[in-house]
Amino acid sequence: MKLTTKESSTYSRSSDAHEDAKTETNEQKKMMVTARAQATFNSKSLTEIILGSKEAVAIQDDAFARLEKILGTSDTSRLPRCYSNMNHEEAFLEGLRAGKVTMEDSFKYRHDVFLYSTHLWALGNASPFGIHTFLFMPSLKQQSSPEQYKFWVPLAESGKILGAYCQTELGHGTHVGGIETTATFEMQTDEFIINTPTLSSTKFWPGALGFTCSHAIVMARLIVRGKDLGIHAFMVQVRSLVDYKPMKGIELGDIGMKMAYNGTDNGFAVFHKVRIPRTNMLSRYANLDQDGNYARVPLREKMLYGGMLNGRFIMIRHAAFQLAQALTIATRYSVVREQGHSPFTGEKTEMPIIQFKTQHYRLLVLISKAYANLFTWKALETSYKDMVERQAKGDHSTLPHNHILMCGLKAWSTETASNGAEDARKMCGGHGYLFISGLPEIVSSVTAMATFEGENWVMWQQVSLYLMKGLAAKDLPTAMSYMVDHRLCSNPLPCAARGSEFLSFNVLQSLFEHRAAQLTFEASELLTSSRTTLSKSAAWNKNMMTLIAAARAHVEKHVLCTFIDQVSSLPTSPIRDVLSKLVSLYGLTTLTSPTSADSISFFVHNHISPIQLSEIREQVDHLLEELLPDAIALTDAWNFTDASLCSAIGMRDGNAYERVMEWVRQLDINVNAEKAGGVFREGFENYIEPVLRAKL
Amino acid sequence: MKLTTKESSTYSRSSDAHEDAKTETNEQKKMMVTARAQATFNSKSLTEIILGSKEAVAIQDDAFARLEKILGTSDTSRLPRCYSNMNHEEAFLEGLRAGKVTMEDSFKYRHDVFLYSTHLWALGNASPFGIHTFLFMPSLKQQSSPEQYKFWVPLAESGKILGAYCQTELGHGTHVGGIETTATFEMQTDEFIINTPTLSSTKFWPGALGFTCSHAIVMARLIVRGKDLGIHAFMVQVRSLVDYKPMKGIELGDIGMKMAYNGTDNGFAVFHKVRIPRTNMLSRYANLDQDGNYARVPLREKMLYGGMLNGRFIMIRHAAFQLAQALTIATRYSVVREQGHSPFTGEKTEMPIIQFKTQHYRLLVLISKAYANLFTWKALETSYKDMVERQAKGDHSTLPHNHILMCGLKAWSTETASNGAEDARKMCGGHGYLFISGLPEIVSSVTAMATFEGENWVMWQQVSLYLMKGLAAKDLPTAMSYMVDHRLCSNPLPCAARGSEFLSFNVLQSLFEHRAAQLTFEASELLTSSRTTLSKSAAWNKNMMTLIAAARAHVEKHVLCTFIDQVSSLPTSPIRDVLSKLVSLYGLTTLTSPTSADSISFFVHNHISPIQLSEIREQVDHLLEELLPDAIALTDAWNFTDASLCSAIGMRDGNAYERVMEWVRQLDINVNAEKAGGVFREGFENYIEPVLRAKL
Repeated sequence: MKLTTKESSTYSRSSDAHEDAKTETNEQKKMMVTARAQATFNSKSLTEIILGSKEAVAIQDDAFARLEKILGTSDTSRLPRCYSNMNHEEAFLEGLRAGKVTMEDSFKYRHDVFLYSTHLWALGNASPFGIHTFLFMPSLKQQSSPEQYKFWVPLAESGKILGAYCQTELGHGTHVGGIETTATFEMQTDEFIINTPTLSSTKFWPGALGFTCSHAIVMARLIVRGKDLGIHAFMVQVRSLVDYKPMKGIELGDIGMKMAYNGTDNGFAVFHKVRIPRTNMLSRYANLDQDGNYARVPLREKMLYGGMLNGRFIMIRHAAFQLAQALTIATRYSVVREQGHSPFTGEKTEMPIIQFKTQHYRLLVLISKAYANLFTWKALETSYKDMVERQAKGDHSTLPHNHILMCGLKAWSTETASNGAEDARKMCGGHGYLFISGLPEIVSSVTAMATFEGENWVMWQQVSLYLMKGLAAKDLPTAMSYMVDHRLCSNPLPCAARGSEFLSFNVLQSLFEHRAAQLTFEASELLTSSRTTLSKSAAWNKNMMTLIAAARAHVEKHVLCTFIDQVSSLPTSPIRDVLSKLVSLYGLTTLTSPTSADSISFFVHNHISPIQLSEIREQVDHLLEELLPDAIALTDAWNFTDASLCSAIGMRDGNAYERVMEWVRQLDINVNAEKAGGVFREGFENYIEPVLRAKL
Repeated sequence: MKLTTKESSTYSRSSDAHEDAKTETNEQKKMMVTARAQATFNSKSLTEIILGSKEAVAIQDDAFARLEKILGTSDTSRLPRCYSNMNHEEAFLEGLRAGKVTMEDSFKYRHDVFLYSTHLWALGNASPFGIHTFLFMPSLKQQSSPEQYKFWVPLAESGKILGAYCQTELGHGTHVGGIETTATFEMQTDEFIINTPTLSSTKFWPGALGFTCSHAIVMARLIVRGKDLGIHAFMVQVRSLVDYKPMKGIELGDIGMKMAYNGTDNGFAVFHKVRIPRTNMLSRYANLDQDGNYARVPLREKMLYGGMLNGRFIMIRHAAFQLAQALTIATRYSVVREQGHSPFTGEKTEMPIIQFKTQHYRLLVLISKAYANLFTWKALETSYKDMVERQAKGDHSTLPHNHILMCGLKAWSTETASNGAEDARKMCGGHGYLFISGLPEIVSSVTAMATFEGENWVMWQQVSLYLMKGLAAKDLPTAMSYMVDHRLCSNPLPCAARGSEFLSFNVLQSLFEHRAAQLTFEASELLTSSRTTLSKSAAWNKNMMTLIAAARAHVEKHVLCTFIDQVSSLPTSPIRDVLSKLVSLYGLTTLTSPTSADSISFFVHNHISPIQLSEIREQVDHLLEELLPDAIALTDAWNFTDASLCSAIGMRDGNAYERVMEWVRQLDINVNAEKAGGVFREGFENYIEPVLRAKL
């Protein structure tokens, strides 16, 4: 008998779990053993698909084992340091400690495990050394001339210098064109003068800029003979390599605590006319000679742009992993947490809360989205690597398509992960609100991704722009060719599917294509009609919400189709069966979810009738029933270690309550109070006692 | 000329702002003066409506002035303490410091200003002394017998004892019935033995329980002669009033850092067979005599339930204020933050970002929701006070209706505020992610409200249950009588409104009623049909998502209708005109918003046609245009002081960038580093230097 939402109110044991569940006395651990045993597939085999190969799994497992040993996090009965009594400076110290170990392991064993697979030690924005590996080195490699490459890259690769990437300013975020920092060429000294001309041009936000980096790639306006030649990259040494004091004329500092990433010193920099040699302009694509002659390679922007996609490419995968982390914790806790009573009958049920429909629905739908994100990224990897190879040979033809994919998927994946992680946290009730659940840090990290590397609402508009340009072109771009079959007409053919036909991938694909096409045509018509009275940008501004709806629909269609392709290409197996159900669940709940964005658009024009809608809901129900026994295996498969989840309620063994109390008793505030006889002495003497003794 | 999204790309000045904007040299302050001057109404008059009267405004202003003077927060050029280098224990100390001042002011001047109007110093969950005033004292007053009242209440009111309210347990949250803590009567000693029988029954989460309270109202199962008589309230002294050490047999402690409210010591308690006198059972509604005879007043549950609604009642208002705080910050920053270029034309625009449609749309729609919440609460206040008076006279007839309103509005308002505050934060880009923006703390506080005092998904189901019972009753309850006109039929009359008729309150009301009725009937039919094969609770579980959709629609209908009533009853004035537009905006964007929950339900059955949908969008567009000049006044009107917003980017004068740098330079980490020559010494020596000098 399977874990079910139907009549049975308690877990029953499948035969292979019988032994463990029988000998285990801890109630929560018992429930976990039982739940895990119900899987219809081997979660370790799915891990190999997720990470790419058996070897990749081994590399990851080894790397985490080494890291956790050095950091001392493998004994999960001990309260993790990040939850003890840390202030701003101590959080940064802890970030440096973990970052150093992580970077050294990555360099020594030459792997990129820590780029994606954890939120705590990710060599990206979460680590002061992450910026060096994730942003500084790739930019350096991409933008250096051969001589510069030879000089700087070995220094960076051996950690002789530590870098930051310095683009955003106090008054200028996503929009590179707004940068005000100047790099003025002075011919007589053959130098650039890097300057912060206004308050709003203070460099602000770059990771590792506060105290960690010795060098920074500074994006600034190149000014030659009073002429603004646009934004270029300059290598600026910001600290002395001897004593690490800021170089003359440079003010550096930290910008304060953030919602997450407090292990990293996001910083600010003010440049007071700082001089650097002319040769410090990174000059692979543009060069200035000592006489002030400027030359750039053709298609410089395209090359730069191609390189900049790397950050988004990594983020899209990272979003899937972060969402999966939150879901792993929430699913495990939902399996061991019993909830009292039926709201309808009031009767005592003591069911694990995963069996309540709201929890069941929310968890499984989010699990389907995490997989949709992962498989979409896998296809993107192929397409992106192909583009990089082509660009190296001077072929930029696939850049626009990849650029748009990255924009759209960056927005979709980070929004999905951010909302999903927060919902996973809420599904854990009050305990999800405690730092020791691990969830606040995940939620706060992932929500940042919606803002940086291209704010999502700006990303959506890039996709809208592509769609509008595509419609205006003589031939539709390949990625839009599906729209031909769905031209707007006043009386379109309604969808003919019924009942379980809605599980068919063809039907799903056609529904998503239809809707994306309709919205795109509609947006285009609105734009055209607004243009009769408004300027180009005012017309755009007026119809922005519809344009974004079209972009979103196009991206959701892409995600669905790619998910279908990827899963369909797997060999027949129980894993493929389960993943196919996840495809259907993702598709159908995007159509009908009470929280999905703009699902109206599937239904206007009566393309789907009310009867079909209820049939769709019936199918969703069946899928949820079928997938429930696999919930634990589907989250186990992501292969997170207990130490990297860092969650008292989300560990593999399910032993949530004991671990919560174990950790809580180790908190400094409790340990210190115990030494003082159980009293928080300073608070009592200064604030509580005066209240008790006062005459109020 | 007004602030507009149309052709003009910069602010123009209205005549009365001319003076200020002319003499001001700071660019951001100038923009703020200009934006503020464009209001079509006097924001101070709206403040009086929001707070209830001119007197209420004066009381609030005075209270905040006293508080901020004592706390030293009135000089806004100084970095607020909460953003400096605080660890867990220091955050709690700061909470005690602020809490003491706040409670003393409330007691001395007898006002409830700090219950709602701030998130930082709210005398509720945000303050260790807040639990005493917000939960402990009301419970005490409600549940004490006259003798107990005379003994305990004066002690509590004069701060001679400090209380906590101890209900939730490690394994039991919202569901009171699950409580495991026991209070066993021992006749020979005339005592109760309070005991924690299992790990999962550890009291967990109560505010002030860690170190602040001396006494706790402990909810426990009354056991008499081996018989379980259900949950009752017991007064337990948990600390010595002499040295504040925990009483014998009681283990107390803090549960660790949370996403917010770290000024409060949410705690845990383990009771090892702790003895209290029999007379410590709070016995207004149930009594146990020394022979173990138990008696309860009739309708005990109803009385208790009525009293428990107070928490939700306060939260619903608090949600409106917290959302308004986030929006005040986001609106002000959006007015002074310029953004570079049009994504369509690439041309440089330097428009304040509030003029970009996405920002404009999101801000104004959320502003309409904050007002909808506020006015709905005002109506609730009348209905709630009436119920309390009736209950005192033994008339419980309005309890069910008020209970359901509280459930539904608690879920709606906290969900709206939580999602809205997070979106407001995202609208501030990267800076919204910094603690000094004030937004993370607001977002993290408000999101907690979705979980505590009744988890929202549970609250929705209470409403669903009411709706299903209502349909089954002989006569529809008054609150559901609107459904009569919208009985399900296979071919319902489509909505007849066109164009600007969608602004009509009657049309809006009818659309919301139609949808709520349809969903309710649909849910009821599904439930009936499931009952042919399933048990009551399994049928409920199966159809839970549809049941919740119905509940949500019913509550959204209630909010719309109440908002309409309240605004319509205001005297004719520019303020009423603006608020009326907000009503329409709230209504229409709930219908069509790309992010609103289940807006499909307005469109199934082709009740609204695609052409009407685009007409609705046109109307939304007009409303947004008309409301834009009032955006600042609509947020100013909530009357938040700069110190209570605690935001470097959201102060009244608009001087965002200067204040960010001013505060950032005062961070401990920067001040300390400066003393060390600009180096973060400990990090450099332990982690950075070893990397630089190592051979990697």
